[in-house]
Amino acid sequence: MHARVLSAELPQQVGQPVRMQGWVHRVRDLGAVRFLVLRDRAGLGQVVLPLDVDLGAIGSESVVTIDGLCRAELRAPMGVEVLAERVTPISIAQPPPLEIFNPRVAEEARLETLLDHRAVSLRIPQVLDVFRVQAEVLRAFRAYLNSNGFTEIATPKLVLAGAEGGSAVFKVEYYDGAAYLAQSPQFYKQIMVGSGLERVYEVGHAYRAEKSETSRHLTEYLSLDFEMGFIESERDVMRMHAGLISAIFAAVRENCGRILRERDVTLPQFDDIPQVSFPEAKRILAERFGKAAGCEGDLDTEGERLISQWAEKELGSELLFVTGYHVANRPMYTMPDQTNPPLTKSFDLLFRGVEITTGSQRIHDYSQLVEGIRSRGLDPANYEGYLEAFKHGMPPHGGMGMGIERLVKQMLDLANIKEATLFPRDRRRLTP
Amino acid sequence: MHARVLSAELPQQVGQPVRMQGWVHRVRDLGAVRFLVLRDRAGLGQVVLPLDVDLGAIGSESVVTIDGLCRAELRAPMGVEVLAERVTPISIAQPPPLEIFNPRVAEEARLETLLDHRAVSLRIPQVLDVFRVQAEVLRAFRAYLNSNGFTEIATPKLVLAGAEGGSAVFKVEYYDGAAYLAQSPQFYKQIMVGSGLERVYEVGHAYRAEKSETSRHLTEYLSLDFEMGFIESERDVMRMHAGLISAIFAAVRENCGRILRERDVTLPQFDDIPQVSFPEAKRILAERFGKAAGCEGDLDTEGERLISQWAEKELGSELLFVTGYHVANRPMYTMPDQTNPPLTKSFDLLFRGVEITTGSQRIHDYSQLVEGIRSRGLDPANYEGYLEAFKHGMPPHGGMGMGIERLVKQMLDLANIKEATLFPRDRRRLTP
Repeated sequence: MHARVLSAELPQQVGQPVRMQGWVHRVRDLGAVRFLVLRDRAGLGQVVLPLDVDLGAIGSESVVTIDGLCRAELRAPMGVEVLAERVTPISIAQPPPLEIFNPRVAEEARLETLLDHRAVSLRIPQVLDVFRVQAEVLRAFRAYLNSNGFTEIATPKLVLAGAEGGSAVFKVEYYDGAAYLAQSPQFYKQIMVGSGLERVYEVGHAYRAEKSETSRHLTEYLSLDFEMGFIESERDVMRMHAGLISAIFAAVRENCGRILRERDVTLPQFDDIPQVSFPEAKRILAERFGKAAGCEGDLDTEGERLISQWAEKELGSELLFVTGYHVANRPMYTMPDQTNPPLTKSFDLLFRGVEITTGSQRIHDYSQLVEGIRSRGLDPANYEGYLEAFKHGMPPHGGMGMGIERLVKQMLDLANIKEATLFPRDRRRLTP
Repeated sequence: MHARVLSAELPQQVGQPVRMQGWVHRVRDLGAVRFLVLRDRAGLGQVVLPLDVDLGAIGSESVVTIDGLCRAELRAPMGVEVLAERVTPISIAQPPPLEIFNPRVAEEARLETLLDHRAVSLRIPQVLDVFRVQAEVLRAFRAYLNSNGFTEIATPKLVLAGAEGGSAVFKVEYYDGAAYLAQSPQFYKQIMVGSGLERVYEVGHAYRAEKSETSRHLTEYLSLDFEMGFIESERDVMRMHAGLISAIFAAVRENCGRILRERDVTLPQFDDIPQVSFPEAKRILAERFGKAAGCEGDLDTEGERLISQWAEKELGSELLFVTGYHVANRPMYTMPDQTNPPLTKSFDLLFRGVEITTGSQRIHDYSQLVEGIRSRGLDPANYEGYLEAFKHGMPPHGGMGMGIERLVKQMLDLANIKEATLFPRDRRRLTP
């Protein structure tokens, strides 16, 4: 008995007896010859079935062991195929509700159908590839930050109140009282800057009880956050962020090249990300696009799209920082821009027409932060554990947060953010 | 103006003017000379304060910039110190509620006091070091599994029902209905084996609404899980797991050597982890230790401690797999051991007297799994999305799950699991 060979390893096995294991992706009976395409974690392998090999109950998606001879075959996808001697069933499958071998299913089926049958739709190679990219994004995110002196942290998702002030949070029955699901790790990553780690990042779920249902929102998403101390200004955060995105794109180009090619998408290469201030962006939207409404405090969906269009045309960049939002439109911990009141040292990052990141320098002075909390009509006493970090010495710091699903959606040009979520949650969906 | 130099970089700066930034760890006035110990993310640096440098309001935990000259000094901890020319305050601290420079505080303060003042207690270097080890454990966990063909996944924590059957779950108000916080990613990682990824892992929060309060339980913990397909038996999972633990220990030895030395702890080196069956373990407990009660279906706390004691003495191992638990004491997805009914192909891993891991081969046959669900009095209709993976072809597979907090507690010989949690949650604690 031979050790299992993966489909991608077949080119090294020509002339050898091999054992393969995987899912029956497709069987094609061409009369004179029968082909079985076997799917494993490394890809697809072509198997030729002689007449005396009986498949019995083995159909699409059954899991099988194939023993046979690996031989060169120029017409096979990898220039190699396996002549089967024996096909042994491991798990006999019932006929699947979706044609997994048919790439058009992923494009044409209703998203809700794909999500209803997630255990099956994820087997469609084009559907699964999205999550191979996602894993690579996670790997590259951590690798870049590790190499820049950051430490990974894990902070609680069960909290007493929402970081941003209380709206749109999910309530949890917690013993005899109530808890809420964290909307972001904001307070905790700031405390961890103050702990002395200085530079921290977290990959963790965040929760938004969104009332609306759009192609870009999830009630549960995976938030990528970093926070760094001893900065001069928000520019240091933006520089780190630009380097991070550049490193992520480079890693995906290098390690997911096949997927990018098959989807016919590319990822930008850049040294710097250009920036425009929010007031300037509003002026451009008005003058260039005649858009005067919908962007009072923040860009609306159309505003994001148009200003990105402008940046691509005028600045040659698919990425754009928008900076300097009004203090009224940013959370209470955002550092005001003293040279430019009432603006703040804040930024959003747009990528291909959609905001993927929000960040800023934060207030590090205790009194200023207490004042910021009060000015929003909030009670500093409810922020005691957070404020303690500031009371006892906190360096200038800033950071950013982004949802990986939206980043991957934009990278791979997906129509809906749920395509970048293994098991998405929304108002109506809690299963599978 | 010079770029910031970290404390650990000082030995390379002898004879140079340097700028340091960090927290005032301690000021010691010896009359003839004043020392300031500066703390930054890299450690501690010794600063000499000439008489003409006035600290003003700068006290413990204030954040400062120090400009000065780096010089060799044999009596300084790193053989180097900085003669300050100027100390500039960045953030003036109020006196901290705990003595951060005093290592005895971490040992002698009540744990509840340390947790009440978490933003401050985390600054105690001995307290913070635990989380440096934790970050290294995470890095090594992923690196080992990545190099073994695993893919990282992120699965939902908002679910319709608990994986293990419904008890001890937290209920969430989810729009007009209810959701629950996932107790484990069990079902989802199995579906992802079936998706074709074959080998998957996840680092994510898990939730247990524990009624009891012990030194080893948390209501929210960070679960490290892997699941792998195309195994021969649970032995393949145990082998992978042993390699994983060995790699984690090696990485912590290599990258957190100072912390292990300061705490006077070592981590075992091993090629293999010995195993004992549960019935055999019970026999040993009865014969060697006269312990007959408390270990009917599973080892109780004392049983875990005693059998570990036996393994260390008789097998020379601080790690021990206990295998072959009774089917009644394992979840419904556990593979029965056909050669040894009514036992199962399951295992726990004990480390220094405490169970840190639970794992098994899982049932992969659809009918057998449906039967398993029914035999527990559960309704297969409630497991539709999970069962779909099995209906359409699933390879033999197995996996394991462990809480990182308990692993780190055992590695560093901590008294309470909350010392291995940045912001622990329990019945009474939701803040900070």
